[in-house]
Amino acid sequence: MNKQELFENIKRKQSFLCVGLDTDIKKIPGHLLKEEDPIFAFNKAIIDATAPYCIAYKPNLAFYESMGVKGWIAFEKTVEYIKKNYPDQFIIADAKRGDIGNTSAMYARTFFEELDIDSLTVAPYMGEDSVTPFLSYEGKWVILLALTSNKGSHDFQLTEDKEGERLFEKVLRKSQEWANDQNMMYVVGATQGRMFEDIRRIVPNHFLLVPGIGAQGGSLEEVCRYGMTPECGLIVNSSRAIIYADKSENFAQAAKDEAGKVQKQMAEQLKAARIV
Amino acid sequence: MNKQELFENIKRKQSFLCVGLDTDIKKIPGHLLKEEDPIFAFNKAIIDATAPYCIAYKPNLAFYESMGVKGWIAFEKTVEYIKKNYPDQFIIADAKRGDIGNTSAMYARTFFEELDIDSLTVAPYMGEDSVTPFLSYEGKWVILLALTSNKGSHDFQLTEDKEGERLFEKVLRKSQEWANDQNMMYVVGATQGRMFEDIRRIVPNHFLLVPGIGAQGGSLEEVCRYGMTPECGLIVNSSRAIIYADKSENFAQAAKDEAGKVQKQMAEQLKAARIV
Repeated sequence: MNKQELFENIKRKQSFLCVGLDTDIKKIPGHLLKEEDPIFAFNKAIIDATAPYCIAYKPNLAFYESMGVKGWIAFEKTVEYIKKNYPDQFIIADAKRGDIGNTSAMYARTFFEELDIDSLTVAPYMGEDSVTPFLSYEGKWVILLALTSNKGSHDFQLTEDKEGERLFEKVLRKSQEWANDQNMMYVVGATQGRMFEDIRRIVPNHFLLVPGIGAQGGSLEEVCRYGMTPECGLIVNSSRAIIYADKSENFAQAAKDEAGKVQKQMAEQLKAARIV
Repeated sequence: MNKQELFENIKRKQSFLCVGLDTDIKKIPGHLLKEEDPIFAFNKAIIDATAPYCIAYKPNLAFYESMGVKGWIAFEKTVEYIKKNYPDQFIIADAKRGDIGNTSAMYARTFFEELDIDSLTVAPYMGEDSVTPFLSYEGKWVILLALTSNKGSHDFQLTEDKEGERLFEKVLRKSQEWANDQNMMYVVGATQGRMFEDIRRIVPNHFLLVPGIGAQGGSLEEVCRYGMTPECGLIVNSSRAIIYADKSENFAQAAKDEAGKVQKQMAEQLKAARIV
């Protein structure tokens, strides 16, 4: 999916919500455990319930890998289900990969060729040749970690170099030598508040994937105030607050209500910015 | 496996070689493709041939994930095979994971509990709470990326802060607040030469996992000169140069010869350092 198509979807649905499919067998409603593939059954119900209110889904690979082979099957079925039934949804494999060139190329083959997923989160620590193998796929995206939502983001990402440039700023600046706003996005945590201003000075036009609203406590209003662009430029993720809104047999309806609520707030933000 | 047991294995086998199981379906000998599980068949033959000469195996997850469900099955079978037949081998899942706390905890469960693997490579960019969930498992290890073997390692890892401390040095220093030489090792590329001296100033006793000899061109002799400790302190990995030494039906014998050659060089280094 290219940038223009993504923006069209955002305008049409008045939403820039991504639903994080962090599906944990220990947290899904008990009645699903009798299904042949409980993880996929849960995802399918969540997707059917929330698709009208979001423009992207983000399965976090850790949750699937933790179940070994069964988890991979559930992951692949989930991706196929979205692609077949909701082809306008942008799919993000939240994998935080990044390795030496020939290994990153293997990952690119997996996620972009075999699974035909739109985008993949990538860690920047290993530098250019760990990222570039992902960039040669038409319509596919690298989503590079820049300033994450967790407490540990302060340990290294905020370290200033001799010129006063912080590491996350260097990641934003340097990576533009390899990529552009048509094949790269950045992860910026919603918990980072006014840092979005600093980020927009370096990447005024790139889409940002913003985790951290909901369970992690970030503010949608603040993210929009400091991070929104004329083309929206934001994909805001919520995982736990939506998919685990209710743990009874009513879980899908509760997820729908929660996603609908966030979509309404997003529509207001898009209107205030005169995007819709 | 604890540090003392690892050191005993190194002395007994006069080797600190790790064989990297970067098994690519496109590179294995053609006659194996008729096997039910060609990847596992290849790994099994390589393991049986090389086990006397090495003390560790390092499957890189990218190669297995690139084959989806089949790849995960081959990965799990490989780990089980090593554990059952060669229980003195240290197993490294080269996965370069690292995510927010609850997600890293999922990865820890997968690799340390379910697969009972000895160690996992982890990327440091997201800081403390992305690493600590891996540290609470007795006898298990985090192998944190510090200074990698690839060209892109220069992009961010060498960035100096205001006090002149480079990022990889900060990673080494900071991470010792969370872990110690009994549950953490570091990745340092063999291509980094005299940088090993700087690294040993910060982590004099930690084991280092050293990729980059063989196909990537690093020198074993140099790594030993600047990186070896009285307890060896090195696990040196070779992947392609051993497992793809020959692509005919003779591949396992060729891998054995190659591993044997490296082991001899290592025995000399251990003798020179009066470790054996």
